[in-house]
Parts: sequence; C-alpha cells; structure tokens
Amino acid sequence: MQTPAGPKGTRDFYPQDMALQRHVFDSWQKTCRRFGFEEFEGPMFEHLELYTQKSGEEVERQLYTFTDKSDRHLALRPELTPTLARMVAQKGSALKRPVRWFAIPRLFRYEKMQRGRLREFFQLNMDILGIADVLADAELLAAVTATMLDLGLTAQDFMIHVSSRKLLEQVCAALGMDAPLRGKLYGVLDKLNKLPPEIFAEELAKCLPDTTQRGAIESLLRARTLADVAALYPGLPALDDLQTLLDYCAEFGIADSVAFDIGIVRGLAYYTGIVFEVFDTMRTLRAIAGGGRYDDLVKRYGGPDTPAVGFAAGDVVLAELLKAKNILVPAVPRCQVFIVAFDDAYPGLAIRTAAAIRRAQIACEFSLKKTGVGKQMEQAHAAQARFVLFVGGDEGRQGAVKIKDMADGTETTVNVADYIDILKRALQ
Amino acid sequence: MQTPAGPKGTRDFYPQDMALQRHVFDSWQKTCRRFGFEEFEGPMFEHLELYTQKSGEEVERQLYTFTDKSDRHLALRPELTPTLARMVAQKGSALKRPVRWFAIPRLFRYEKMQRGRLREFFQLNMDILGIADVLADAELLAAVTATMLDLGLTAQDFMIHVSSRKLLEQVCAALGMDAPLRGKLYGVLDKLNKLPPEIFAEELAKCLPDTTQRGAIESLLRARTLADVAALYPGLPALDDLQTLLDYCAEFGIADSVAFDIGIVRGLAYYTGIVFEVFDTMRTLRAIAGGGRYDDLVKRYGGPDTPAVGFAAGDVVLAELLKAKNILVPAVPRCQVFIVAFDDAYPGLAIRTAAAIRRAQIACEFSLKKTGVGKQMEQAHAAQARFVLFVGGDEGRQGAVKIKDMADGTETTVNVADYIDILKRALQ
Repeated sequence: MQTPAGPKGTRDFYPQDMALQRHVFDSWQKTCRRFGFEEFEGPMFEHLELYTQKSGEEVERQLYTFTDKSDRHLALRPELTPTLARMVAQKGSALKRPVRWFAIPRLFRYEKMQRGRLREFFQLNMDILGIADVLADAELLAAVTATMLDLGLTAQDFMIHVSSRKLLEQVCAALGMDAPLRGKLYGVLDKLNKLPPEIFAEELAKCLPDTTQRGAIESLLRARTLADVAALYPGLPALDDLQTLLDYCAEFGIADSVAFDIGIVRGLAYYTGIVFEVFDTMRTLRAIAGGGRYDDLVKRYGGPDTPAVGFAAGDVVLAELLKAKNILVPAVPRCQVFIVAFDDAYPGLAIRTAAAIRRAQIACEFSLKKTGVGKQMEQAHAAQARFVLFVGGDEGRQGAVKIKDMADGTETTVNVADYIDILKRALQ
Repeated sequence: MQTPAGPKGTRDFYPQDMALQRHVFDSWQKTCRRFGFEEFEGPMFEHLELYTQKSGEEVERQLYTFTDKSDRHLALRPELTPTLARMVAQKGSALKRPVRWFAIPRLFRYEKMQRGRLREFFQLNMDILGIADVLADAELLAAVTATMLDLGLTAQDFMIHVSSRKLLEQVCAALGMDAPLRGKLYGVLDKLNKLPPEIFAEELAKCLPDTTQRGAIESLLRARTLADVAALYPGLPALDDLQTLLDYCAEFGIADSVAFDIGIVRGLAYYTGIVFEVFDTMRTLRAIAGGGRYDDLVKRYGGPDTPAVGFAAGDVVLAELLKAKNILVPAVPRCQVFIVAFDDAYPGLAIRTAAAIRRAQIACEFSLKKTGVGKQMEQAHAAQARFVLFVGGDEGRQGAVKIKDMADGTETTVNVADYIDILKRALQ
C-alpha cells in the first residue's frame, strides 16, 4: 500500500520538531511558575452544549463534533476557557480565590487553512479568577510579556494592543444601539485589522445603515489614544479602567509594550471588559496571543459570581515569529555516552556497562546490532554523544577502558573501576 | 443553569491531580532520555483506515469515530503505534536506524468503564525500530523496569511476564491449525488471566472443538518454564529467542523482574514475536504496561522492511499502584516569595517589587486585591510561599524591607538594595 499521510491541518512531530515544541512548552511552564500559576488540564472533548451555548458563532462554526455510542453529542475542544469555567463552577466556593491557573492545551478548530493557522494546535492559557480589579489584567499583561522575553524575543519584537468591550458597549449605548445590533457590530469591528479598508467600510455600512451611528463609530475608530476617545465621549467609566490598566503596566515596567488600540474587539461572545491581542511589531503575522475579561462565564455555567480574566497564546504563530527572528532552539544531544564494544565484549560487557552508566543517571546508548568499531562510531556521532567509551579489546584484557571526548578528540585510558566517577565529573 | 459535568470516562485535572501527572510524566521523560530515546508526537486523530486495516478487532470496536466537514472519516487515536509506523514509513530509509523514540500520548478508547480503565488516558510509549535482534526487546524490558524504579517502586512491586507470538504460531502450525483459527485462538488465550477458569475452558472448547488440538493447547498452558515447553515441542526456534532474551535480561541486571508466562498473548493483531505485560506482584490490578515485537507494521503501511519492538504503559493503573504502595508525590509550592504590602506600598511598590523579584527568576506573587496584612498572610500560606517579603510601612520609610522565613518563622530586616541577593542565596 502507499503510505498514508496524517489528516489535513494536523502535524507530525518528528524529534527535531518536538525539540522546538518541548523548548517552548518548558519555557512557558517556567514563566508561569515564576508568576505563581498552577497547572491544570481538562478533557480533550466536552459535551457539545458547553460550546454552543456560550462561545458565540465564531467558535461554533469551527467545531469537530461527534456522537459517542450512547448518542452523547460531543465536540473536540476548540479552546480551554469553557472547560476552565466549568471546572471552577463545579467546585463552587470550595476553590480558594484567586485561582491562578495555567495550561498548555491541545485544541482543534475546523477552519480554512492559512498561514499561522492549523486545525490542530497548542496554546498557553493563563487565567486569574476571583479578582475584579484591572490589576489582575495588568498581571496577565506582565505575564504574557515575560513569556515572550523568556523565549529570547525582545520588547522591540511585539506589542500588546488593548481595548475594552465595556468601552464599546458604553459608546454603543450612548448611540442608542440595542444588544443584538451591538453584537453584530462587534463582529464587524473585529475585522478592522483583517480586511482591506474598502471591504471593511462596506461591511460597516451594511451593519449600520443609520448614518449618524455609522459616522460616530467611524470617528471612534480614528481615536489613537484614550484622550482621543475622552474628547468624543467624556466621562465614560470604561476609560478610567483602561487608564488604570496602563498605569499598572507602567509599574510592572512594561509600558513600552502596551498600547491602546480601539480596533481590538475579540471574536468570542463571552468577553465583558478589557480585551487585548499581541502582535509582532511589523504586523506581518496573525495575533500571537489574545485575551480579556470574562466576568460572567463561571456564573453562566452555574457557579458562583466569579470575575475572571485570561489569555491564550498559540504555538503556530509563535514558532513563525521565533523563526523570523532567527531564535534557535538549543540542541539536546540524544545521549551523553555511547559505548563502543570490541568483539570480545559484545553484547555481554556492553550491556552490563550500559546498565551501570544508566544507574549513575547518565544518558547512554550502545549498538543493538553486532557490527564493527567504525559503524559503532557512526552511531555514536548520530546520537551526538559527548563521550565514547571503548570496552573490551586490549584495554579490556588489562582491566581498563578508553574514554574519548568527542568535543576535542582527546583519549584517556582509565581503570575499569573509575570510569563512572570520571564520566560523572566530566558531565557535571 | 446547573453546572455540567465533563463527558463520562474523562478526567478533570485540578492542580493537585496535575501535580501527580506532571511528576509521572517528568519521571518518564527522564528515564527515556537516560536510555537514549528521542521524543516524538503525532496528530490526536487519524484517518479511520489507519486503524481499521491493521490493529485488529479489539481496537476497532473501541474507536471514537467522526466525519469532518469534507466527509473524511477520522478516529481519535486509541494507541500511538499506527501513527509511529506511518511516520516511519513516510520517511522511508531517510530516517537513520535504529529509531529510538518515545512519546507520552493522550489516547481515547470507547470501552466499558472498569477499575484502571478510562475512556481518555495517557501512555508512555517507547519503541526501537530497525533492530531484528531480541537485544532490542531486552533493552526495552530494561527501560520499562527503570521507569518503574525511577518512580520509587521496587523490584518486589512488579513482574514482567514474557512470551512469544512466534512460539504460539510454531506450536499451532505443528498442531495443523490454519491462520484464521490461530487468530481466533489468540483472542481466547489473551483472556487466560482475565476470565474465571471454567469460563475460559468453555471459550477454549468453543474455539477448538478438535479434542487433540485442545488437549495439546491445554498441556502447553500448563508450561511454567521454557524447559516445560521444550519438553513438549523440542527444537522450536522461538524458544531460542526467548532464552536469549532472558540471558540478555540477566546481563541488564533485571533477571529477577522477568518471567516466562505462556498466558501472555496481547490482543492486538500486529504482534509478530516477543510479547510482554507488566503486572503488580499481587496481580490485583490490570496490566501496568504491555508491548512486543511488530516487525511487519511499517512495511504494511508502505514503508521499508523495518523490524520493530515497543511498549506502552498507561497512567491510570500506574497511579493506582503508586497510591497502593503509598508513594507520595513531592509537593511543589505555588511560589517562593509572597509580597505583603502595607497600605502605603499598595499597589505601586508591590507591583514593582514583584517585577524585580521575577526578573531575578524567583517565583513570586502578591495580593491582586487591596486588603489587610492578615488577609495577605493567608494568601501567602495558601500559596505555600517559603518567604514573605513585607514592603512599605515603618521599614519602608527607612529604606528597608522585612523578610520572614516561613519555614522557621525568623524575621530579618534588610536594606532595600539587598533583598534580591539575599532571597536568591536563600533559595539556591
């Protein structure tokens, strides 16, 4: 038969791909723990209703749905936030606040394949639940900044764009728009940075036939600072929130990485306050991360009233940015010591030596096939071993082994009783 | 609304559950790397045919299947071996042999819920491809032993039971059974240790109405050692393989953990040689791990002829064993330093202090809500912080901070310029 390929939109991670992923995930883990976040996880699929009732149209269209043999309607998770809200809701008030959780979920969205978009991908999720103050939002902006810097990116490489759903809501209310119209408008505004200007203008006109309303929104979209918005709509409470957020960001030392951007809306229906997206400075890639406040979600799932804010960063766009910035992943050698055995030592002594070296917590391999010294050396190179240990042969008959340091080519012959200590010290 | 639960057979991992999982996964990773294995991963679902054609009935019945919006037939992966074989087949001979890969996949089987069995679970997979010699099988038995010992289990806690598909095949051929009958018989024999003896006898009689054949198999099943089998069927080549395997295991120093067991068959259709399962010594749990040789699979997926051997260990039974043996997971505190801020320091100085401590790579938190010192101390306890740093107040006015060591209650007042170095040294 012909070799089948994996399903469209998924990836095979061969060891060198996996090394990049492991590097990113380990770095994410480290940043999260430094910020005092605990790891959690949920099921890979959920009851379909968990998504259809809460996340809005964008996510619903993209679900991989299926029915199990008891006719339960299930869906592969397209995001982790509904699971998080469900888990927090289930524990009720037994769960100590604030909840500071992170996860690195694998997610699935059936969508058109584009650059930076796959149907199966990973995310970092960080969420703070139980805090209504925008200080929690600022803490998350500091955390998302740290995740980027920890990976070797610089403050020049990215920018966090922030706005507020509440701000939009308060403006729309002032313009006399009802909730359904506002929902439709958010969907259009979310495309501001994604569509060519003339197409966006058309969509806006279709959504807002009333020219007064449309003119007001167009003026709003021209605002570049909070002061610009305040000039149009003085005294909106949402503006104070945004200003406080920016002040906190200055205290965190990340003021240069955060900018107000009225064009940030976020597609998901459940956001209620601050929303933000992280972009590369040149704006050549899709959003690297995005998030915001979702104060109603835990309550809507039957839990106690729980203010909440969180963000997600995807692995696909991030990998593109790291590549564009030429940030390399440190190579991890497959083993530290490769045992090359002369004929008289194979396989018995080779096996016993490997067992002893591994018991000393040193990563070690040997040839699993009887072959010449030259071929074994090739295997040692392929495994990127730092040291080669020659067992048997002339040295073996004299109770010795030869150690070759592959970094500089030097060879030492040592007593068979000493080689483990010598390797241990050399590899420290 | 009422809070919905997650789907049946899945788990929610709250942070303390996740801590156990992270501990097991980290330990698995470490063992694999010590044995010179590289990590890989594949998609969470595959084209349905990847399973229906190769893995045999047991797996097929348990698939979660679904159709995507382009009418592709897909299935959540019930095991990783077909994906591994597909990935190796796709690279053809470009992939250097031996391939020594591990993975910690999440898997899905729609089956009856039992103790130690869930519908969504994790496994450790280790595979060696490109080596026909049973030395590779022995290397994997050494590796599976190390995974158990590294988790704190002892050689007294478990036993690896080994047999050989080839041995069964050679016996069945000597008894004149054709391939379809052999396949049926393997399915029955796989239940030897799982069914009450009288039910097993019934199933065997149904499968083998020929009393000569049945009598011969019943005699075979009474064999306790390779010598017992050799007495019944002298000179079977598969016996030599098993003897060599046991000899190699002795060289690896794991002879006491490995025993011949004619009752080990393995349900999957693709095994071709040595097969093995790991059980707790008391046999109170399901198999902890299982594996064997599958020399034909890569070729069947269109790749080059590639001998292969591998095993999988599940997380659910293992967790039960760790619990039964009272092996505790070391607690990981949520943060190292908690900042308690007096009113004059909140939030500005608290934020700046947290930012500085985190920049020093120290895990740190502070209250995200303005509250009294007592409430902040409660938060510090909940976060299991090793040190509490008091900022602001009287000390603050004198350019100092107070550090409380939560391990012994001692308090030190230090200059504000020095606290990071002091914390760094104390936490080393």
